[in-house]
Amino acid sequence: MTAIAALNSGSSSIKFALYTLDEAQEPQLSARGKLERIGEAPALRVVDGQGAPLMAQEWPDGAGLTHADLLSQLFEWAQSHLDQRQLIGIGHRVVHGGGRFIEPCLVDAPVLAALDELCPLAPLHQPHNLAAIHAIADIAPHLPQVACFDTGFHHTLPAVATRFALPRAWHDKGLRRYGFHGLSYAYIARQLAMVDPALAQGRVIVAHLGSGASLCAMQGGQSVDTSMGFTALDGLMMGTRCGSLDPGVVLHLQQQEGLSAAAVEHMFYHDSGLLGVSGIASDMRTLEASAAPEAAEAIDLFCWRVVREIGALVASLGGLDGIVFTAGIGENSAATRARITARLGWLGAKLNDSANQTHAPIISAPDSALSLRVIPTDEEKMIALETLSVLKGQHP
Amino acid sequence: MTAIAALNSGSSSIKFALYTLDEAQEPQLSARGKLERIGEAPALRVVDGQGAPLMAQEWPDGAGLTHADLLSQLFEWAQSHLDQRQLIGIGHRVVHGGGRFIEPCLVDAPVLAALDELCPLAPLHQPHNLAAIHAIADIAPHLPQVACFDTGFHHTLPAVATRFALPRAWHDKGLRRYGFHGLSYAYIARQLAMVDPALAQGRVIVAHLGSGASLCAMQGGQSVDTSMGFTALDGLMMGTRCGSLDPGVVLHLQQQEGLSAAAVEHMFYHDSGLLGVSGIASDMRTLEASAAPEAAEAIDLFCWRVVREIGALVASLGGLDGIVFTAGIGENSAATRARITARLGWLGAKLNDSANQTHAPIISAPDSALSLRVIPTDEEKMIALETLSVLKGQHP
Repeated sequence: MTAIAALNSGSSSIKFALYTLDEAQEPQLSARGKLERIGEAPALRVVDGQGAPLMAQEWPDGAGLTHADLLSQLFEWAQSHLDQRQLIGIGHRVVHGGGRFIEPCLVDAPVLAALDELCPLAPLHQPHNLAAIHAIADIAPHLPQVACFDTGFHHTLPAVATRFALPRAWHDKGLRRYGFHGLSYAYIARQLAMVDPALAQGRVIVAHLGSGASLCAMQGGQSVDTSMGFTALDGLMMGTRCGSLDPGVVLHLQQQEGLSAAAVEHMFYHDSGLLGVSGIASDMRTLEASAAPEAAEAIDLFCWRVVREIGALVASLGGLDGIVFTAGIGENSAATRARITARLGWLGAKLNDSANQTHAPIISAPDSALSLRVIPTDEEKMIALETLSVLKGQHP
Repeated sequence: MTAIAALNSGSSSIKFALYTLDEAQEPQLSARGKLERIGEAPALRVVDGQGAPLMAQEWPDGAGLTHADLLSQLFEWAQSHLDQRQLIGIGHRVVHGGGRFIEPCLVDAPVLAALDELCPLAPLHQPHNLAAIHAIADIAPHLPQVACFDTGFHHTLPAVATRFALPRAWHDKGLRRYGFHGLSYAYIARQLAMVDPALAQGRVIVAHLGSGASLCAMQGGQSVDTSMGFTALDGLMMGTRCGSLDPGVVLHLQQQEGLSAAAVEHMFYHDSGLLGVSGIASDMRTLEASAAPEAAEAIDLFCWRVVREIGALVASLGGLDGIVFTAGIGENSAATRARITARLGWLGAKLNDSANQTHAPIISAPDSALSLRVIPTDEEKMIALETLSVLKGQHP
């Protein structure tokens, strides 16, 4: 028996999952965990494939522990957990594949160097993704590592959807719309093809609504438009991010208000979105439980922007057959789904309230012109699947 | 007989019109003109109400002539043209009324001071608008001057449409969505109510497509959403402006590429849009006449973004009854209107090709589910009407 691992390494947290491979080579979840508060007081929680606790550890005085230190301990635990099963590869979420990396690929030194060059395109995410690859290479030099790209799913975007209205020399230098959350969208496209193949062949908007949020317009399972462009700041309003913006606002904050680019960046990534508008919290659950008018304003704006962007993507698609909600808010906030779909009556959307309350797979009413679905996303599973396909030689 | 003047004063040009008032107090166009190339070699062309040339003048060595110098000469000409008819007021386009000025108003010293304070909200436009008011006050101290605001028409925007997803303290300081091209939208709303009162009561998108471009979603003749927010950079792709943008692009250009805020501002206002993407021209007519693939790409992107934003505004409106095209491109480019409406079949839009070719008032086919119209805009006329209503005491 063999196994593969999936790693999603961020600035202060690492998500991971271990999959054993059965005879059909279908990955079976064996363990799933999250290392949080790296750089402060790291804490690790791992559950098994059924969600039962497997282990938990805390390092109250571990502010000095690096990602590499913690990955080393994690790797050791994983080996003992897998016991006789051989780890045959690790897949990594890599946020940016640029224009070159549109499919998952084995990481060797030249690839790693090329991925390093893309760090300026995602300075807050890419370095942490790559640091994990470096760390694993030190721990297990001969273990195949696979990079799975968050931009990859969007390589089918039509040319017009990749362009900003900026001087073309900048486009040619890579300043273009890439799109993100691609591992989530690839997973949803795959699931949808299994549970509703007819809808999967049609025009579908997938609403990945979490602390990061974006929409993807799919035609026949392929991305044809998306709300995020060049960075994770673009598109929808998010937990703490502002989404797309009048560029004059950025300039005004600097030229008239005297803020530095770094201060503006911090505001846009960390102090905006649901948190900034409400002044209360970045978490939708907290806002929904609040009686403060500011919380209601933040929720209203979040939903208004989702509805508006759904309209934009419907225009890109030339019509719509269904919407799939996914990620933290999309899977768990019945109220948000109800608020959004209530404003989509013009598309023929009609919610089944009781199905929506229980987060049922199908939440549209029988007479809805639009299919409305909830599909839990699983980026780690997609990383595992892509990693497996690379190990099998199905990618160049 | 009396007369009023309308002035639209920009950085390098001044547009103006003179109206005589008949007994019904309806402004009749007497002369219309444009002063161009101020600061280089100013040139003035004036036509009468029927478009026949009235006068032309050039100052080949006039690089040193200020707006005030030229306004003084213009004022002198206007007085002689009006002859016995007394000029009873001048209306000015003022781009930004901020949160306070939602209706046109007489300009006195305190108002002028308050408008001056709004210059940081529109540093490229507002100072030129106000400079003209100062100049006229010097020339004719007792002549009533009226400020007509480009933001004013959008004071009916619902609260949710005025907000960016930024920390609320910034919203409270005025960093919000205002909307522009309001004089054009007010004029179109007025015309539409006359030519198609039923449609005017419905859900209409007005597409003001010129070298500056925006869309306005109207419900019952009132603005409920618009594509421009805080500055004239927002929303659609324009002749030389980029439209709304991933804020991460702005930061990337500064932090990774080392551009100053001023250099970025110049790029976004002057080197982007149709010009930047095509590398050829900012003028749609030039691009339509070009066989270069870059010209086609720029046109495609322009139309794609209009279509996408129409979808967003349809979502805001909860459906759509009609679209009105106006301004330079909207009134004169049959090809652009055809490209845009061809992608709106999902809304039931169906173009009447021959009517479109002749820029007819109604360009939808008889069986179109959507009314498609062309209405020439006239911002100077709207300035005149608003000025007249202020002089009559119909505004506070």
